[in-house]
Amino acid sequence: MIIAIDAMGGDLAPNSNVEGAIAAARKMSEARLVLVGDEARLRPLLADAPQNIEIRHAEEVIATEEEPVKAVRRKRDSSLVVGVTMVKNGEADAIISAGNTGALMTAGLLITGRIPGIDRPALSPIIPSVDGAGVMILDAGANMDAHPEHLLQYAVMGSIYAEKVMGVSRPRIGLLNVGTEEKKGNELTKATYGLLTNSSLNFVGNVEGRDIMEHVCDVVVCDGFSGNILIKTMEGMAKTLLGALKEEFTRSLTSQLGAMMLRSGFKRVKTQMDYTEHGGALLMGVQGTCIKAHGSSNALAIQRTIEQACKFIAQGVNGLIAHEIQKESGDLHA
Amino acid sequence: MIIAIDAMGGDLAPNSNVEGAIAAARKMSEARLVLVGDEARLRPLLADAPQNIEIRHAEEVIATEEEPVKAVRRKRDSSLVVGVTMVKNGEADAIISAGNTGALMTAGLLITGRIPGIDRPALSPIIPSVDGAGVMILDAGANMDAHPEHLLQYAVMGSIYAEKVMGVSRPRIGLLNVGTEEKKGNELTKATYGLLTNSSLNFVGNVEGRDIMEHVCDVVVCDGFSGNILIKTMEGMAKTLLGALKEEFTRSLTSQLGAMMLRSGFKRVKTQMDYTEHGGALLMGVQGTCIKAHGSSNALAIQRTIEQACKFIAQGVNGLIAHEIQKESGDLHA
Repeated sequence: MIIAIDAMGGDLAPNSNVEGAIAAARKMSEARLVLVGDEARLRPLLADAPQNIEIRHAEEVIATEEEPVKAVRRKRDSSLVVGVTMVKNGEADAIISAGNTGALMTAGLLITGRIPGIDRPALSPIIPSVDGAGVMILDAGANMDAHPEHLLQYAVMGSIYAEKVMGVSRPRIGLLNVGTEEKKGNELTKATYGLLTNSSLNFVGNVEGRDIMEHVCDVVVCDGFSGNILIKTMEGMAKTLLGALKEEFTRSLTSQLGAMMLRSGFKRVKTQMDYTEHGGALLMGVQGTCIKAHGSSNALAIQRTIEQACKFIAQGVNGLIAHEIQKESGDLHA
Repeated sequence: MIIAIDAMGGDLAPNSNVEGAIAAARKMSEARLVLVGDEARLRPLLADAPQNIEIRHAEEVIATEEEPVKAVRRKRDSSLVVGVTMVKNGEADAIISAGNTGALMTAGLLITGRIPGIDRPALSPIIPSVDGAGVMILDAGANMDAHPEHLLQYAVMGSIYAEKVMGVSRPRIGLLNVGTEEKKGNELTKATYGLLTNSSLNFVGNVEGRDIMEHVCDVVVCDGFSGNILIKTMEGMAKTLLGALKEEFTRSLTSQLGAMMLRSGFKRVKTQMDYTEHGGALLMGVQGTCIKAHGSSNALAIQRTIEQACKFIAQGVNGLIAHEIQKESGDLHA
């Protein structure tokens, strides 16, 4: 199995990307890792790297703030586009990038194409839950104006991922909504509710933003706009709250002492709330395996994302999606 | 000025409602407060209440879990419907309820009617910001499938509220979106962006869920579905995070001691994050002043909401909205 890593994408690139790749390469000797990027910068970082890690030179870099579609079209020799093209050509089984999210979504869709039967790919992060299990959200921002059929397809993809990669049997599918009652929501969720009820999936009904972290379901489906609002609000609230607490902890000598006594507890909570614990956000529904690691990924986050990619490929998730989606849409039209 | 209070609505009703009303009545001797509800239960609670507080008997109660439209139609003699009807008939200037949100929105709209020029009322809570100022969100769930013109109207209403009640000069209006760039978002936000840019409001562009608590704007406009996801996710994340920390604090003797030393700091952060600090959620755009207090409102939260209502009425916000909305739609069609 060959995993391409965009060595130049992300706030801490290339150092953390290389470091994470080396750690993953050591742990999984059966995998081959290809760092895509500026060879002159990458070579010195690989001084004592294991045998199963190599470099593929790419001249350009797509910056985080670049307009995605333009960047992908113009920068053919960027680390991100070269990595995705390797997947398209069968030179790699997956590409991981901590760089420009929009560019990865664009390249994944335009270069590798959609899985037959999937109308729209979904950006699918796994958000932390209090019990440590994690919950997959589809879609967190790939497709802004979604139709009910798209959400059904997200549910099929999420269910397969949760079962095969997260090890959940009969994953519980929730529909993001403003209340738990069946009739709640907007036109999209009302129509989707019926589709999910009639599907073969384990649909557990509507879920609210405040319940997701309590792990009331394993997979949440929603339109990309709402999903994006959801994950950014969670992330922002956690950051704001922990920041406000941190400020309180340095207020006096007493509070500093108290904070020291609580240090390990805080660390545990921070780890529990850590977005990178479960790897990156998959672009589910494209032919090639594309995973977006968090922009601020450190070495450990990159390593986790590589491990996630390996599991995804080993389980043949994309093939299962193609198979199931045919069955589900057959049932739908039967 | 006469404020009606649904004495029977809310998790802590009627005791907290009565207690909060008494405190408000003492503080604002110029206001008259009317507790609407079961006289037999309320009378004993008013033993040493001031002169400017009275009871209006109502036989029934709408429970939190009741279907709103049915409940409002059937329970004409419920404390909530009687209170809203008092506003309609000019017997009260405002109604406050901590009960069924949907029922208050339904009664507000059906019984008191819309302000001329406003197509859809908006549920408008004020969420906490790190600097303590608060940010108004419209709409947090009154209107699920909104059009761009509705969001423009929300912006006009929010701007007037922020200026007149929160004391902000030239309030900054933000559009909830998935990124800050102009072209981001779904069909609704793209169309709304243009309307807001061409309005006379102080539109500061797109804002993301993670930035709102940092007070990047004073008013956030969005469709009711997204707004509801936003506020419930913020609330849920804060609860989950503070709950996880609390658990850590009781883990060992050391952590218990540390938590004691940090007690005042935690209290400050909790107060900062408290939803009830700025009062309740207004139903902006209806002719009568209807305010939804948080379901778990204690006496202080009820008191704050009563004070908010008084300020809203004293500033003549609804009249200003009617005036401004004519001007803004005139400009729009000019």
